[in-house]
Amino acid sequence: MIIVMQDAASQADTLAVQERVHAEGLETRVLRGVAKTVIAVIGHRPPELLQQVRRMGGVESAMPIGEPFKLAARGPERERSTVRVGGAAVGGGAVTVIAGPCTVESRAQLEAAASCVAASGAHALRGGAFKPRSSPYSFQGLGEAGLELLAEARAATGLPIVTEVLDPRQVEMVAEYADMLQVGTRNAQNYPLLREVGGCGRPVLLKRGMGNTIDEWLMCAEYVLAAGNPDVVLCERGIRTFETTSRFTLDLNAVPLLRQRTHLPLVVDPSQGTGHWFMVEPLTLAAVAAGADGVIVEVHPTPEAALLDGQQSLNFDHFGALMAALRPMAAALGRPLAAPARAPAPAAA
Amino acid sequence: MIIVMQDAASQADTLAVQERVHAEGLETRVLRGVAKTVIAVIGHRPPELLQQVRRMGGVESAMPIGEPFKLAARGPERERSTVRVGGAAVGGGAVTVIAGPCTVESRAQLEAAASCVAASGAHALRGGAFKPRSSPYSFQGLGEAGLELLAEARAATGLPIVTEVLDPRQVEMVAEYADMLQVGTRNAQNYPLLREVGGCGRPVLLKRGMGNTIDEWLMCAEYVLAAGNPDVVLCERGIRTFETTSRFTLDLNAVPLLRQRTHLPLVVDPSQGTGHWFMVEPLTLAAVAAGADGVIVEVHPTPEAALLDGQQSLNFDHFGALMAALRPMAAALGRPLAAPARAPAPAAA
Amino acid sequence: MIIVMQDAASQADTLAVQERVHAEGLETRVLRGVAKTVIAVIGHRPPELLQQVRRMGGVESAMPIGEPFKLAARGPERERSTVRVGGAAVGGGAVTVIAGPCTVESRAQLEAAASCVAASGAHALRGGAFKPRSSPYSFQGLGEAGLELLAEARAATGLPIVTEVLDPRQVEMVAEYADMLQVGTRNAQNYPLLREVGGCGRPVLLKRGMGNTIDEWLMCAEYVLAAGNPDVVLCERGIRTFETTSRFTLDLNAVPLLRQRTHLPLVVDPSQGTGHWFMVEPLTLAAVAAGADGVIVEVHPTPEAALLDGQQSLNFDHFGALMAALRPMAAALGRPLAAPARAPAPAAA
Amino acid sequence: MIIVMQDAASQADTLAVQERVHAEGLETRVLRGVAKTVIAVIGHRPPELLQQVRRMGGVESAMPIGEPFKLAARGPERERSTVRVGGAAVGGGAVTVIAGPCTVESRAQLEAAASCVAASGAHALRGGAFKPRSSPYSFQGLGEAGLELLAEARAATGLPIVTEVLDPRQVEMVAEYADMLQVGTRNAQNYPLLREVGGCGRPVLLKRGMGNTIDEWLMCAEYVLAAGNPDVVLCERGIRTFETTSRFTLDLNAVPLLRQRTHLPLVVDPSQGTGHWFMVEPLTLAAVAAGADGVIVEVHPTPEAALLDGQQSLNFDHFGALMAALRPMAAALGRPLAAPARAPAPAAA
Repeated sequence: MIIVMQDAASQADTLAVQERVHAEGLETRVLRGVAKTVIAVIGHRPPELLQQVRRMGGVESAMPIGEPFKLAARGPERERSTVRVGGAAVGGGAVTVIAGPCTVESRAQLEAAASCVAASGAHALRGGAFKPRSSPYSFQGLGEAGLELLAEARAATGLPIVTEVLDPRQVEMVAEYADMLQVGTRNAQNYPLLREVGGCGRPVLLKRGMGNTIDEWLMCAEYVLAAGNPDVVLCERGIRTFETTSRFTLDLNAVPLLRQRTHLPLVVDPSQGTGHWFMVEPLTLAAVAAGADGVIVEVHPTPEAALLDGQQSLNFDHFGALMAALRPMAAALGRPLAAPARAPAPAAA
Repeated sequence: MIIVMQDAASQADTLAVQERVHAEGLETRVLRGVAKTVIAVIGHRPPELLQQVRRMGGVESAMPIGEPFKLAARGPERERSTVRVGGAAVGGGAVTVIAGPCTVESRAQLEAAASCVAASGAHALRGGAFKPRSSPYSFQGLGEAGLELLAEARAATGLPIVTEVLDPRQVEMVAEYADMLQVGTRNAQNYPLLREVGGCGRPVLLKRGMGNTIDEWLMCAEYVLAAGNPDVVLCERGIRTFETTSRFTLDLNAVPLLRQRTHLPLVVDPSQGTGHWFMVEPLTLAAVAAGADGVIVEVHPTPEAALLDGQQSLNFDHFGALMAALRPMAAALGRPLAAPARAPAPAAA
Repeated sequence: MIIVMQDAASQADTLAVQERVHAEGLETRVLRGVAKTVIAVIGHRPPELLQQVRRMGGVESAMPIGEPFKLAARGPERERSTVRVGGAAVGGGAVTVIAGPCTVESRAQLEAAASCVAASGAHALRGGAFKPRSSPYSFQGLGEAGLELLAEARAATGLPIVTEVLDPRQVEMVAEYADMLQVGTRNAQNYPLLREVGGCGRPVLLKRGMGNTIDEWLMCAEYVLAAGNPDVVLCERGIRTFETTSRFTLDLNAVPLLRQRTHLPLVVDPSQGTGHWFMVEPLTLAAVAAGADGVIVEVHPTPEAALLDGQQSLNFDHFGALMAALRPMAAALGRPLAAPARAPAPAAA
Repeated sequence: MIIVMQDAASQADTLAVQERVHAEGLETRVLRGVAKTVIAVIGHRPPELLQQVRRMGGVESAMPIGEPFKLAARGPERERSTVRVGGAAVGGGAVTVIAGPCTVESRAQLEAAASCVAASGAHALRGGAFKPRSSPYSFQGLGEAGLELLAEARAATGLPIVTEVLDPRQVEMVAEYADMLQVGTRNAQNYPLLREVGGCGRPVLLKRGMGNTIDEWLMCAEYVLAAGNPDVVLCERGIRTFETTSRFTLDLNAVPLLRQRTHLPLVVDPSQGTGHWFMVEPLTLAAVAAGADGVIVEVHPTPEAALLDGQQSLNFDHFGALMAALRPMAAALGRPLAAPARAPAPAAA
C-alpha cells in the first residue's frame, strides 16, 4: 500500500497514519518528495486497512499494490489452465465452439439445433431452461423439463451441455443434468449463487457483469475458486456503454488483458455482445483472432419464430458459414479448432 | 408496434410481415412514405412478436409503443404512492431520512449510531447484516446476530430498520426482523430474489443496478409488484460511467424522470453514489432539491475504523450538520422533513 | 512518481529503471515488500518520463503523485475565485443565473427573451450566434448578425452577454461583441481554440467535453489559464453514459469534487444536461443545492416553434416559476441570488 | 416521422399536432391503438420539426424514420467505396496497413521508423507533426519542420504520408505536404475544421470522437462529404467506457455495423484503442477478422524513449511479428494484404 499525504497535512497527521499502520504489525517508510509526502507500507495488510487509512486526517489517497485475487491471478510462472467439459475442453491452444439455442423451446427445436451444431463441428451444446427475463410477463423457460430435453440431446449427439442456473436452490438439480453451469451477466455478483456453484462439482461458465470492470469480474471468479471449484471459464459478453446501436459493446480488449492477468480460459459471446445476427460471424472471427479460447453462439432452426433473442440467433446456414470461415482462419493462426467431442459425455449415464 | 421496412424491401416482404402480425389476431396499417414503408400494428401484441418481426426479411427496425411495466407505471391519473415502513413513511410530500452504519459491526457501534441518528431526526435506521463484498476474503457481515442487534436498536430508539437481503433462502428469516428489506445493486436483476421479496410481507427498498437503465430498473420493480407486494421504494445509488474520481455517478436526472413515469416513491443514496464522505451533504441536498422523497445515508461513530465503506460514511458531527442544513432547505421547498418516527415499530413485538 | 515492478522482474530490471531515473537528475528509493518491489522517485520529473518508464522491462505500472494542472489547482490555502462578466460576477457565494435562448433567431425573439429573463432576475443573457450542429444541413446560426442583436439586447436590458465561439479565426470578432465567450462541449479539447480564447481579453465559459473526465476538463482550463487568461468559469453540462432516457447524464458529483480541487467557479447547465424542459427546474435547484456558483438555462418565447432545442427550453412562465422556487431555496442555503446586473455592461460602448 | 401521443392527450392536442404538420405541407395518418394514439407523418420534414413537435401539448415522443446522413449512407444498391492515398488504397477487399511513430521527433527517428515499416510491408506512413496534448506543458510536436521530415521519408520510401491537422488555419499548409489529413478524436466534432478539410483536395482519415455514437460520427463524415470531399476513411479508435484497465474500449462491433450503414472504408487504430503495446497485435488481427479495411499502428525505434505514447507503440521486432501473423490470417480470410505502395507518391514531386 502507498499512502499519499495532502499538501496541507501536518507532521502529526503523518505520524498518526504511521502509528495506525504499525498497530497492524506492518512497517512503514516515509518519503518526502518535492511536493508530496508518501508513506510506503510493507507487509500483508488486512483488507479493511486501505479504506480506513483513506479516511484519516491529512490523507489524500491510498493505493493498493498487487492483485486482490489470489487464485485467479496468473502469477509469474503459471501456465494458462484448461477446463474439461464432458468430453470437450476449453483452453490449451485449440478453439472451442459452444453453440445452440438461446432457450430450449421444445424437443423438436432442440433436436434440430443439436444435430445441426454437432454436424457443423461444435464442441458443446448450449440451451437455457431457466431464463432471466427483464419482464416478469415474458416466457421464463421450460425449467426442469428443459433440462431433460438437453440430456436427451446430449445422448443423441454426444455433445456436453452448458446451461444457466439462476437460483442457489436449483444448483444441485441443474448440476445433475448439465456438464457445465453458466452464471449469467445479471448474476455475476450474486455471491450466494457463486458460492453454491463453487461446490457443485461441475465446471462453471462465468459471464461478465454488464456493468463490471475486469477486476471485479476476476473477484467474482475468485468466489467460485475460493469455494473449492477450480474449473472456471470466463465469458466476455459485452458491457454497457453509451453506444446503443448494438445491444452491448463487446470488449475484445479484455481478451489479451485477461490472458496476461489470469490463468483461467476465456470464451466470448458474440450473440449477446452484439444483439444482431449479422454481426455474430465477424465478431466470432475477431474474438478468436484476439486470442479467445473459444466462443459461445446462439443457433436456432427458425430465428424469426424464436421465443426469445431470435434477432441475434444464427440459422443453420449462417452457422455452417461461420464454421467454414472460422476453420481456415484458426488454422492460419496456428490454433486449429478442437476435435469434435462425440464420445458420450460422462454425466449422461 | 411500429415496423419500418428497409429501402430495399420488396412488396412480398411487406405482405409476409403483415401476415405474421395478422396470425396473432392483430390489425395492420401500411403507410408508404417518400423514403420508407411503415407498418403500424394495432392491438396487444405478445411480447415475443417484437423480436420475431425484427428478424424477418426486409425489416429495418421495429419499435414498441407504450410502457412495458404495467404495475409500476404512473398512468395518466394515478397519484404518487406512499410506502409505510414501520412507523415511518416514504412519499407523500415530506422528506424521509434513513441513516445508520453501512454494516452492523458490534452492539456498541450500532447503539451509538442508532442513538445519534434518532437524536438528529432520522426516520429509519439502516445497517447491513449480510454484506455483498467484492472479495470473498473480506468481512461478510454478522449474519443473523446482526439482525438481532438491529432489533435491539429498534426497541431502544423506536426507529424502523432497513437491512439488505442477498439470498432467496434468507428472505423469510430477514423479514422476521426487518421493517424493510433492501435489494442491493448487485442483485437488482436477481429475479428469484425479487420474486421472493415479492411475497415477504414487508416493504422493499430496490436499488438500481449500477449498469441498468431506468427502464430496466422499473421492470425489476415490476417483478416485486407482480409477485403481490405493492410496497416498493426505488433507490437511485449511482451508475457506472467513465468518470472514476467519484465511485459512481449519481444520476439525479432519474429523479424527475421517475416522478413522471412511476407512482413509486424514490430515495437517493449519496453515500454509495459518490464514495466520498465530503460529497454526501451536497448530494443529499441536491437529491431533495431535485424532488426525491428521501435519502439513505451512511453514518458511523468512527469512520476511520469502520470495517467497510468508512471513506463514504459521515461521523456524528457531519450527520448533525447535514440535518441542520437539510431542514431549512426542505422547508423552503415546501417539503418539510417528516416527523420523527418514535412509536415502537410493529415488527418489534 | 511511484514505480511498481512485476513479480518476475529481475534485479537488473530494477537497476535499469533506477539508472534511467537518475539520468534525469532525480533520486530513487527502492522498497522491497512481501510481494512487490516498488521504486519511489523524488524530484520534478519531465512529463514524458512516466510513459517511458512504463515501457521498460520488468515494470508493472507507474503512478504519478500530485496534480498535473498547476494554475487551475486549488492548492492548500487558495481561496475560490470570482470571475466578473460585465456588471455581473460568478463565484463569491451568491448564485448567478445566465439565461436566454439556445440560439438567436430574430430581433423579436431575442428582445422578448432578454426582457423576460431580465425581469425575472437573471444576471446575464445567453444566446448562440454560431451553433455547432450535428448535421451540416441544419440551421447554423445567424453569425455576426446574431452578435449584433445580442449587443442590442445588452443595451436594452443592461445584461452582459454570453455567446459561443467555434472557430479560432472568429475569436477576435466574437470578443468585440460578447462579455463572455463560451467554448462548447464539442470543442472542449480543441486546443488551438483554447489558446486563442486564452488571449481574447474576455472571461471564458468552458463546458465539459461530453466524453471527458474531470481531470481532462481541468487540463482544458489549464490551456486557457496558461495562455494568460485568468477568468475561466467551468460549466458541467452532462456526460455520455448508457442511460439515454435523458439526453446526457448531468454529473452533479462534479460540483463538490471541483470545489475541492480547483479555485475556478463552476456553473451547471441543466438544459443541455437533461434535454427535457420539465427536468430543468428540479436540476437547477439540485445544482445550486450541491454548491454550484450558478446555472445557465435555455429560455425561449415559444419553445414549440424554436429552430433548435425547444424540447429543453423553458417558456417564460416556466422560467418565472424556476426563479420563484430558486430564490427562497438559495436564501435558506445562505447563498442568496446575486443582485440583478442592470448597469450598462462595459463592452456595450 | 412517427408521433406518439400521451395517454392523457385530448382530441384537441391531436388536432393541433396535425395542423402543425400540415402547415409544412406534409400529410398525416392518425392511428388509434388500444393504448395509444399515433400520428404518422408522410413527406420530407424540415429538420427542426421533430423537436418542435416533441414540445407540443399531449405529445409523448416523436421518432424520425430514415437515416439523417445522405452522402455517407450506403443505400440499398451502393457499393462500398475505395479511397486512394498516394499510391495506396483503402477499401476494395485487400487489407491496408498504415504505420509509423505517434509523433515525428527527429530525422533519425523518422527515417528508422519509415524504413522499418516499409520493409515490413506497410502501405502508408503515419507520423504527427501537430499533436493535441492533454497538457499545455507537454511537447506539442515539431510543426512544419515535422512535415518536412515526413516529406523526406516519403521520398526515401515511396510511402504516402498520413498526418494530423488541428487548426483550420493550418489545413492548407498541411495539405501541401501530406497525402492524407487526419482529424483526431478531440476534433471529431470541430465543424469549422471538418468544413476546411472538406475543401482541402486530399483524402481525410476521420477518427471517431471518444464520446460519440456511430450515428454522430457518420454525421461528422457528412460534414466533410457535404463540403465537396468524397474521400473519407473512418477510423475506429476506442470509446470512453467505465473500463479503465485499457485506455479506451475498442468498439469492434462498429466494424460490421458500419459496413452495413455506410459505403465509406473503415480502418481501426489498436494503439490508441488499447493504450498498451502488448494488446496491439491481438486487436489488429481482431479488427481485420471483423472486416476492417485496414489498421493504423504506432511503431517507434525505441518506445521506452519515445516523447509520447511509447506505452502503446510497437518496436521494430513487434511490428515484424505483427505483419508475419497478419499476412497468413488475412489470406485465410480471402482478403490478402494490399501490395506494397513503393511508387513515388504523387504529392512528393
